[in-house]
Amino acid sequence: MQFLSDNAARVHPKVWEAMRAADGVDAPYDNDALSQRLDETFGALFGREVTVLWVATGTAANCLALAPMVPPHGGVVCHREAHIEMDEAGAPGFYLHGAKLMLAGQKDGGDGAKLTPDAIRAVIDPIRDDVHQVQPHAISITQASEYGRAYRPGEIAAIAELARGKGLGLHMDGARFANAAAFLGLSAAEAAGDIDALSFGCVKNGAMNAEAIIFFDPALADVVRYRRKRAGHLQSKGRFLAAQLLAMIENDLWLENARAANAAAQAIVEGASERLMHPVEANEVFIRLTAQERETLRSAGYQFYDWGADAARFVASWDSDLGEARSLGLQIARL
Amino acid sequence: MQFLSDNAARVHPKVWEAMRAADGVDAPYDNDALSQRLDETFGALFGREVTVLWVATGTAANCLALAPMVPPHGGVVCHREAHIEMDEAGAPGFYLHGAKLMLAGQKDGGDGAKLTPDAIRAVIDPIRDDVHQVQPHAISITQASEYGRAYRPGEIAAIAELARGKGLGLHMDGARFANAAAFLGLSAAEAAGDIDALSFGCVKNGAMNAEAIIFFDPALADVVRYRRKRAGHLQSKGRFLAAQLLAMIENDLWLENARAANAAAQAIVEGASERLMHPVEANEVFIRLTAQERETLRSAGYQFYDWGADAARFVASWDSDLGEARSLGLQIARL
Amino acid sequence: MQFLSDNAARVHPKVWEAMRAADGVDAPYDNDALSQRLDETFGALFGREVTVLWVATGTAANCLALAPMVPPHGGVVCHREAHIEMDEAGAPGFYLHGAKLMLAGQKDGGDGAKLTPDAIRAVIDPIRDDVHQVQPHAISITQASEYGRAYRPGEIAAIAELARGKGLGLHMDGARFANAAAFLGLSAAEAAGDIDALSFGCVKNGAMNAEAIIFFDPALADVVRYRRKRAGHLQSKGRFLAAQLLAMIENDLWLENARAANAAAQAIVEGASERLMHPVEANEVFIRLTAQERETLRSAGYQFYDWGADAARFVASWDSDLGEARSLGLQIARL
Amino acid sequence: MQFLSDNAARVHPKVWEAMRAADGVDAPYDNDALSQRLDETFGALFGREVTVLWVATGTAANCLALAPMVPPHGGVVCHREAHIEMDEAGAPGFYLHGAKLMLAGQKDGGDGAKLTPDAIRAVIDPIRDDVHQVQPHAISITQASEYGRAYRPGEIAAIAELARGKGLGLHMDGARFANAAAFLGLSAAEAAGDIDALSFGCVKNGAMNAEAIIFFDPALADVVRYRRKRAGHLQSKGRFLAAQLLAMIENDLWLENARAANAAAQAIVEGASERLMHPVEANEVFIRLTAQERETLRSAGYQFYDWGADAARFVASWDSDLGEARSLGLQIARL
Repeated sequence: MQFLSDNAARVHPKVWEAMRAADGVDAPYDNDALSQRLDETFGALFGREVTVLWVATGTAANCLALAPMVPPHGGVVCHREAHIEMDEAGAPGFYLHGAKLMLAGQKDGGDGAKLTPDAIRAVIDPIRDDVHQVQPHAISITQASEYGRAYRPGEIAAIAELARGKGLGLHMDGARFANAAAFLGLSAAEAAGDIDALSFGCVKNGAMNAEAIIFFDPALADVVRYRRKRAGHLQSKGRFLAAQLLAMIENDLWLENARAANAAAQAIVEGASERLMHPVEANEVFIRLTAQERETLRSAGYQFYDWGADAARFVASWDSDLGEARSLGLQIARL
Repeated sequence: MQFLSDNAARVHPKVWEAMRAADGVDAPYDNDALSQRLDETFGALFGREVTVLWVATGTAANCLALAPMVPPHGGVVCHREAHIEMDEAGAPGFYLHGAKLMLAGQKDGGDGAKLTPDAIRAVIDPIRDDVHQVQPHAISITQASEYGRAYRPGEIAAIAELARGKGLGLHMDGARFANAAAFLGLSAAEAAGDIDALSFGCVKNGAMNAEAIIFFDPALADVVRYRRKRAGHLQSKGRFLAAQLLAMIENDLWLENARAANAAAQAIVEGASERLMHPVEANEVFIRLTAQERETLRSAGYQFYDWGADAARFVASWDSDLGEARSLGLQIARL
Repeated sequence: MQFLSDNAARVHPKVWEAMRAADGVDAPYDNDALSQRLDETFGALFGREVTVLWVATGTAANCLALAPMVPPHGGVVCHREAHIEMDEAGAPGFYLHGAKLMLAGQKDGGDGAKLTPDAIRAVIDPIRDDVHQVQPHAISITQASEYGRAYRPGEIAAIAELARGKGLGLHMDGARFANAAAFLGLSAAEAAGDIDALSFGCVKNGAMNAEAIIFFDPALADVVRYRRKRAGHLQSKGRFLAAQLLAMIENDLWLENARAANAAAQAIVEGASERLMHPVEANEVFIRLTAQERETLRSAGYQFYDWGADAARFVASWDSDLGEARSLGLQIARL
Repeated sequence: MQFLSDNAARVHPKVWEAMRAADGVDAPYDNDALSQRLDETFGALFGREVTVLWVATGTAANCLALAPMVPPHGGVVCHREAHIEMDEAGAPGFYLHGAKLMLAGQKDGGDGAKLTPDAIRAVIDPIRDDVHQVQPHAISITQASEYGRAYRPGEIAAIAELARGKGLGLHMDGARFANAAAFLGLSAAEAAGDIDALSFGCVKNGAMNAEAIIFFDPALADVVRYRRKRAGHLQSKGRFLAAQLLAMIENDLWLENARAANAAAQAIVEGASERLMHPVEANEVFIRLTAQERETLRSAGYQFYDWGADAARFVASWDSDLGEARSLGLQIARL
């Protein structure tokens, strides 16, 4: 009855299988046969040429994806509740050498932690070309957002148009990209839209410790090859990371797992719909609960994080038990 | 017949076993039961209190170990052929925010890439307290060295005394620490000596993607917890890294594997002793070979790296075949 | 009729005189006789031992003062409208290697851009010891604040107590420190309070290009000597900066100039008191003015900056003409 | 009888005059009329369009000039005795965010600290496109070199051709550019050659605290405007730096002063020619002298720096007394 985080879930059996199969003699770093297949495999998924680099964590994926877009004196526009701002311990400041996160959007989830062109313009237009101000060089959005909201293709297109018009890079933090795509019923390409780089999350979705950075512009990847090594993220036995990523894509495991997690989230929603803080468009459920109510649930064995003083966050995983999720919803209904 | 690198070796079955056993529901990051056991397990190995943090690569281990010792305006004295200078793509410059590697010792292996107090003093004494010069804050040595040479306890003690006297931190890159300890027949504590932090290598010795940073001063570790997260190296499913490390230590697998690799290296030496560039005190064998001789060996199926124009490097692994190693040595003898 | 900025004012004749007198052969960098007198001169001013380093700009002063207090993975609590956040083009991110500015206090001048212990606690208490969150290492306050408000000794003492209790450094941006001290009628020591480092501003107060960083802890200064050189701020003919600083302190020129600027600001206030956005406690006057009213004033020859859509900022200088200032106030009264 | 450094010389009267004339009300930062004239004035000097930014020190000039050419993961090829490596306290590591100085050329002055295409290729060719190695992004040469040697146009052209061929930026540290141009009898354009950016030194040549960074590609300057502010080097009263630079260029004061310094250096040479370590092609004279001989000269009142154990460096300035210089040479001849 663990709804703390999809980070805490198990590794999917097909991932294990692929990792075991990777354990033979092969070339080190990413010169192995599996790593060499990534571009093609993800290219087929996205229906266009891509360059793919593996890393072990989402934080590394996000920061390395942004690194070639943002010089040290530049800025990244992101939502003020974005993971890169709130939960990465200053990693963007490290990887981008002091570049600034330029915080946009509403506080406390008012906009579901989704950016809009207007919210972005409100931050960057007033300081344009002022040498005393950090200038934006990229925009980062999160699909699904930190409140489990999914960007629709038109919303991404509007932000992409703004980015192109201003010469800004566009990055997508896709720690739960699969959940968004599964919810929207869209292809990977449609759920991503016209972006420059995507942190394609796998660890929250059944992998062990491999994330994919998808570059839609190979020139960005050519820079990041050096940045990844420089950050100590070029593993010498990279074949085990490549194996995880390939296992996630082949036979659509990424979608299958995301659908399972989303379904468990919706099972919670069934009972808790009146207390929802946000529409549930992925595998995260934010529910208004008093401290006493949370205590009641914890006494019943449910694990989850508080979300401020009056709410809680429940995250379903690929291996969440549907029955447990439904029971949780019902218990909430009865509170 | 792969002697390219111990990086290319397989994952030991006991490591696999431990990883599989770690795959249940547990707390994320390093709050899991396995990660929590690291301090005690390594403490027993070293016979003193230690604080242990896992990371995925040796580059990350080295740089994070040095991070709390060296401010951005400081320097690290290391051998001019040290891995941190030669092979980490500038990672120390990244992790230490532009701190300088202060290169000491002889070129081209004259001293086996081992530092001495004199070599260190020759670099740091002339610039002492000169505000126009980067000042040293730490020393980094490699056990076994980049030429497969092992520091004796007295040699380390002399460097440690110098470090203490000048208020410098002392780090040991132990990518092949196990090989050195096995060769010397010393305990882990004896092979490490009086240092502040040790990058305890496992990936070259049978693990998949886990290295241990051993801090002999817990205050250093308390800083590095933040630095590790900031570098994107705090994996959410850290239990799989902890499992690897524990598997390496329990039942002395680290020593067993190192002994096997060292034995294979010595098997090569048997035939090649007259061509050795350096005494073989670990699992690396540097052999003078002309381009034509190397071509002959490669035609016979041996894989290895050239070492400059007139030599080659052979690295044995825990899973090297002793017979292959011996054959290699004999072939060299017959060249 | 220039009220754009005290940056635009002239260099005081006594500063010129001191600079000319410094032009003989002397030791380079800060080994000259004038630089060597700084500690003693400022020590007398503050009534305690201090270590003083000159730099050319307030941005450099602020960032270098903070550098020894804040590691790259740490944070600085400052007001969300502090100069270091709003107007230094990301310099803190550069000098502190990606450390984070942790923004506290109210938006849009609600609190006059002055921090309080409560405002600080609201930012740092929720994330205490969370490895996923940047941890605070210092607090920076501005005397006088960005809205020309002066901290009273009790207010500083309360913040200092909080800082000590949490082991945080305390820095004061004193770009207009003289104006605050003059307004409060306090000694330098009283206007500074129990802080670790002070950026003692001179450029806005009659100097040409010299600011003093006052360290109340000599260990901080010993670090900053290296940081200053590393930042290219150790001028080889530093005697000309030292000369400016000494001229400002000797015969209380710093106070005399600040009083003149403050008096000019108050002269504006006389007419404009009903439109004031903030009490005028230094040399800055923020006045509610429509776009048309601002146009009227500009047509009359007054130079000043807009402050948002409905206000303007007027800054008086040591060389502001009192008559002009009074006329400006009267014109505003008649609008 | 001061031959320690041209840094210790006085400020030229014409520079003083220009600074005094700049002391009126004008726009802050570099929006003043003098700063706005720099591009045109230096453009006329170099016979082509340039963009000029002032800074206070040579260290800042060098590092800011390189900043837009070199990403944090890149490298700068420079001579192993270059000022940026030897005397700037790690400033390149700071400004370039950990980028690496890739040291080329001979030790101990064997090549007069001048780079050649061969010396550069020896450093960069072996590591080309290796992700484990920092890759070069720029070359920096010094005119005149750290041993007072002047690059001839053909030598610069050969390096420039190499740089273009490999896509590397080319920077010239011209702390003593004027001395080289004066010695060679070349125009500024000829003495600079086909480079991307030049640190045009003035502080060692009669200015107080202003250096010019000359960009031959305006896109580089557009980046450095932000970098300069971010480094705290955008002075608010920048007109006083612009005034110094204009004074140096107008009426060829830069050449006149350099000729005077060079003449004084040659006056020393007259007596000391047999002891010269390097041909004297600027204003620095390196002379073999035993410790006792140096003591004799110091007793006679001469000030200079030791250069290792068996030599000394004498630097002449624009205000060196020719008679004193000649006497010094004669004294050396009599030792």
